[in-house]
Parts: sequence; C-alpha cells; structure tokens
Amino acid sequence: MPAPTPAVEPVSTDARATPVQVDTPGGRYEIRIGSGLIGTAESWSGLPRAADAVIVSNPAIWSLYGPALAAAIAPQHRRVTQVLLPDGEQHKDWPSLQRIYDHLLGAGCDRKTLLYALGGGVVGDITGFAAATYMRGVPFVQVPTTLLAQVDSSVGGKTAINHPLGKNMIGAFYQPVRVVCDSDTLSSLPRRELVAGLAEVIKYGPIYDDGFLGWIEAHLDALLAGEPGALAHAVQRSCEIKAAVVGADERESGLRAILNFGHTFGHAIEAGLGFGTWLHGEAVGCGMVLASRLSAELGLASASYAERIERVVARAGLPTRAPAFAGERWLELMRHDKKAEAGEIRFVLVEAPGRATVRPAPDALVLDVIRRHSEATPAGVPARP
Amino acid sequence: MPAPTPAVEPVSTDARATPVQVDTPGGRYEIRIGSGLIGTAESWSGLPRAADAVIVSNPAIWSLYGPALAAAIAPQHRRVTQVLLPDGEQHKDWPSLQRIYDHLLGAGCDRKTLLYALGGGVVGDITGFAAATYMRGVPFVQVPTTLLAQVDSSVGGKTAINHPLGKNMIGAFYQPVRVVCDSDTLSSLPRRELVAGLAEVIKYGPIYDDGFLGWIEAHLDALLAGEPGALAHAVQRSCEIKAAVVGADERESGLRAILNFGHTFGHAIEAGLGFGTWLHGEAVGCGMVLASRLSAELGLASASYAERIERVVARAGLPTRAPAFAGERWLELMRHDKKAEAGEIRFVLVEAPGRATVRPAPDALVLDVIRRHSEATPAGVPARP
Repeated sequence: MPAPTPAVEPVSTDARATPVQVDTPGGRYEIRIGSGLIGTAESWSGLPRAADAVIVSNPAIWSLYGPALAAAIAPQHRRVTQVLLPDGEQHKDWPSLQRIYDHLLGAGCDRKTLLYALGGGVVGDITGFAAATYMRGVPFVQVPTTLLAQVDSSVGGKTAINHPLGKNMIGAFYQPVRVVCDSDTLSSLPRRELVAGLAEVIKYGPIYDDGFLGWIEAHLDALLAGEPGALAHAVQRSCEIKAAVVGADERESGLRAILNFGHTFGHAIEAGLGFGTWLHGEAVGCGMVLASRLSAELGLASASYAERIERVVARAGLPTRAPAFAGERWLELMRHDKKAEAGEIRFVLVEAPGRATVRPAPDALVLDVIRRHSEATPAGVPARP
Repeated sequence: MPAPTPAVEPVSTDARATPVQVDTPGGRYEIRIGSGLIGTAESWSGLPRAADAVIVSNPAIWSLYGPALAAAIAPQHRRVTQVLLPDGEQHKDWPSLQRIYDHLLGAGCDRKTLLYALGGGVVGDITGFAAATYMRGVPFVQVPTTLLAQVDSSVGGKTAINHPLGKNMIGAFYQPVRVVCDSDTLSSLPRRELVAGLAEVIKYGPIYDDGFLGWIEAHLDALLAGEPGALAHAVQRSCEIKAAVVGADERESGLRAILNFGHTFGHAIEAGLGFGTWLHGEAVGCGMVLASRLSAELGLASASYAERIERVVARAGLPTRAPAFAGERWLELMRHDKKAEAGEIRFVLVEAPGRATVRPAPDALVLDVIRRHSEATPAGVPARP
C-alpha cells in the first residue's frame, strides 16, 4: 500500500496534479485529476486494447461531455457506442443494469469491451457492476462528473445496484482500470449536489487526517463558491486518503469500514425516506453528526469535537437534524446495513481527531442520540434537508 | 499450480478418495469426493463461521437430500433456511436469482452468511452468482448432485445466469470455499442426465489426458451401468484435471479455455434450439464430434482420432449429428460465444491426443464440417438427441 501522504496546507494551483496510485490485490490503477482531461486524448492512452468502447451515462451528462469523450477515445477503438440510463438513485436498479447488458449483447460486444462510466455515483456504480458481470468481467474506466463521485464512489472498486429492501445490496468488488476526474465538470454541478459531495470530503478529516479537516474549515467558503483550485485540492487529498485506505483493505474486512463514517445512520435515513428524497451526501452529513455525538456519548471523542463536526456540516449547508422515525424503525433500518453482523449494528466512531474505529453501541444510547438530533415532525413525515 | 497427476488405470475402490486441492489467486479449497458425505458432519467442519446458512436447491433434489444436509450442518449455524428454485436451464435467470436475494434480505442475512448450492449445474451456477454479488460477496459451498456438476460446473469458480441473448452471459469468477461430491447422489440420476454428464468426463481425455480417454473407453459400460467405483474414479480424475487447469489460469486468459472443448458448437446448438431442448452435455457431446472433425480438417488431429472421439461419444449414447440450422444462423450463434473476440469465433481444437489449442478457423470449412454432421431435417426443426 502507498504510505499515507502527510496533510498539505496550501491550495494546489497545478491544473494537472500528480496521479494518485491505487494498489489493490488485482493490480494498480491511476486516478488522474485535473482540468480539461475528458477532451484530451492523452488521458485515455495506455488503456487495455478493445475493439468496442461503450460509454454509459445519463442524458443530461451525455449532452455536456459525451461527444467530447467519444471523440477523444475514438482513435483507440473500432467502434464507440453509448447507453443512456435514466438519472437518479431510484434508477440504480436491475432494469437499468439490464439496459446495459441488452446493449452489449445486442451490439455483439465481446469480453474485451471497455466500458466508460461517465456520470455521478449512480452511473459509476451500475456501470462498474455491469463490467464486473458482463461475460464474467470486462474492463471499465470511471469518469466521475460529480464531486461525490470524484472523492468517493469512483475510487475503491465498490460496484452495486439497489434492492427494494436495501441500498447497494447487490454488487461486487471490481476495480476500474483508471479513474479520470475532470475538474471542469464540477462547474456545471447544481449547488445541492456540490454541497452533498462536500459531506464525503469532510468525512476524510475525522476518520484519517485532522489537518485536512482544518484545511476544509479554512477553505469552506472557497469550496462552496466552486473555486477550481480549492475543489481540485479537496479531490486530490480525498483520493489520496481513499487510495491509502482501500490499498490496505480492498474488501472491508477491517480498515476500509472507516470510510463508512456517517453511513450507517445515513443509509437508514435514505432507506427510511425512500431513496432519492435526501441525496446520499445529505444523509451522510447528518449521519456524521449523529456518529460524532454517539462517539462522544461513548467517551471516545470529546463533546467539543462532536460540536466541531456539527459546525462544519452545518456551515457546508448539509442537514444536521435527522427525520423523526420511530425508534424501532431506526433499529430495523440500521440492521439492514451491510456492516451489521448477526443482527448487531456496527458503527464507525471517532476515537480521536483523525482516527476512527468500528464497534457496536447500546440501542438505548443510539436512540437517545437520534432523538436529540431529530426533526420535531411526526414519524413518517420526511424532513427536508 | 498443482502438478498434473499421471493418468491412473485401476478403478478406485476407496469410498473416500483423497480430496482434490484447487489453488486459485484467492486461496485454496478442497473437493471432497465419496459415498455418504452429505449426511456426515465431518464433511462440513472447518468452513467459515456463519450465523446463517441458506441452502439453495430445487424441490426434487431438496426432497431427496435437503433434510440430511440441513441436519448435518445444523451444529455449525444458528439458523438454517432454504430457498427452492424451479428446476431447469430455462430458470437459470434473473427471477430465480432474485428469489435468493429476496430470501436473504427478507431473513436479514448478513454478509457472513454461508450459502450451500445443493443440486445440479443450474443451482450451482445461480447460487454461486448470488454468493458473488450478495452484499458484494458471501462464502458458498458447492454440493453437486449430478455427474455434470460434479465433474465440471461445481469446480473452477464460474458462476452465471443466462440472458435471453446468450447462455452464461451475466456472471462472475467466484470460488466456492469447498466442493462436496457425494457419489450416492448419482444413483438417483435419470439415465439421460448420467449420459449428459459423461460428455464432460470424455472431454478431459482429448484435451489433457489420452490415458484417461483409454480408461473411459475401457470402462464405459460400467459408467453407463452407474457402477459406483467407476463413477467415483471418473469424478476424481475429472476434478484433478480441472483443478490443474483452473489452478494455472482462473480467468480463462489462456489454458483454461481448453475446458470449453466442444462448447462453441454446443452453446450454438443449445441457444439455437432454445435452452433446455438438448441437455448441455448432449450439446457438448455433439460439439466434441464437430470440433474433432474440424481439428482433422485443419490438419491438427488425424481423421482416425476424430473417428475415435465420435465412436466414444456415440457409445455413451450422446448425439453425434447436429441440428440443421442454416449456415448463417450457425455463425451468428457462435459469434455470441464468450471466446469470440472482435467478431472472430475461436475454437478449442485437438492438436494431438490429450493436447488442445484455441484458434479461429475459416467459416467455409466450419460450415462444411457442420453440414456433413447435421441431421437431414429442414432448418428450424429441432433434431432430438
């Protein structure tokens, strides 16, 4: 595994930073971060040879970047085609996946076909799973176009679709052959999605790098203003941390689980309200507040540290109050979390600034923390972020 | 990789032969072969710890062996439940897979849950794919109950479901944690299935071990009579060869492709007639005849060797004449084979007794070989094996 890089303070001004290397049991791949990468032929050189390239995207993203990507990769392939999926978390499902299979088989794509996932986390997760399972595995490239996808979902090889009974319940660990993060795509991002993406950026502070949390606090206004240099640095440092964690533990047997900080509560919020009501990052933002408070209640983190997390989450514009589900509903939703084992819910908690741990917690304490951080709305009425 | 064991002549009389070790990049697992293994607690010791065990089977197989298996594994788990799938290749599809996911999620099974695939190739392939993809991977055990599954599909980590446009098009390489072949299950096998299984046994001769082909020729009557000692030896030697090949090449980048001898033609027959019209083994039997003839036409094997293969296939009771599809239809069906690359069909051919190679062949020659080995029925009318 690559040694964790020390936290860096200055904002990067280099449009094309050093690629981040990700080491996994199956091999090494690069994350390339910078401005204008999608339209540059060099971004796509050295990929596995394939007669067929298939770009998977959604109509909105395709119209912005699809033709440029198709043109840039055209010299490498005999044929470039695209599959456009309906947008939204509610379409991260079997029918969308089937569209990809139908296209690949209908076009006679062989098992060397290279898939390109052009879009946010939904496109990346589905395309990755299609790549993992089409003819038992074809190579794929992640081209994330949202902040959330650039700092989190495109890196680390988690691919999945949702099941009516749970998010990401059907999937595979399957690594891309490259990740290309074009910073220019972030400028077209709606503010709500930018903010949601910041939740996963903030996450890396408490679990791994307290210095990075300080950097985020100092540059939050620049990040919210969409300042390219600030965003590029946030993406770069987030990817470095994720690469270090994933390189040490591809399959979440240990260390990797810390990347799910805020996610046990967050998934419960998403599932309880129905996927898509809150954005994933919004649910994670609120989940981090709850997890920090729970850490403090358990005597791991200090109360003032939990308040610090709540402050940065609130300043980013993310929700800090959870929906008012009944207690039993919360526990039921969290027991469906993939980290649960034999019915025991396991939480990612902060044990010191920049250091996380995974452990269970007493139900009563968990429910007490939730109650004190819930909207005062009747159960079942979705709180809006 | 384990060194290939030399061909052995005598029929094994040991009910519990030495387990066959399979080495893969992800680790080593054992194939245990013998009489009475399902009901013996010792067969199931040393497996990964899991609160939940879920046996996947079909109603007919479950009624024969399900209760014995459930009782034998009960001491290892907190809860043992079962999912019964409809029987038949036509049900190796998404709805069957979904039944497994629905059961697992409905029962709150966590990601340490151990799946047991109790049945033939259909159950094994679907269960393996469910295990590969449920919560991004849970462990599973293969308990094959047909000759075909014991000598072929349960070993090597190929898992899949079918797509309307092609067999096994959606799947994953995912290794079981153990394979348990109970010879007693073969006694309940309908003769047609026993014969179909023999196709995959015969296969190992031409591609890897000419001595084993001689043994098969000498013991074919005993195998057809269902003699336990003969069947146990056939299973043992087949698994040894498959383990050696798979250990050298998990993902079919090279050597492993030889295991598909007869399968390019065979898959075309199955797909062209509609899955389930011919059994997989029947299609492979006929496919081996065609592949041997093609090998001879290309000057690789001798004509007399091709005749020898045709003779043993015929003696086993397998079809040697292909259905009379039109030439273009044959090519179209074979281009959907996973071994095809950039539209070029690749055939597994015998280059010497016990040695195979993978290469393309001229369309005209392929069609000529097929024409000379086809039923004289009008195109589209399925020839019956």
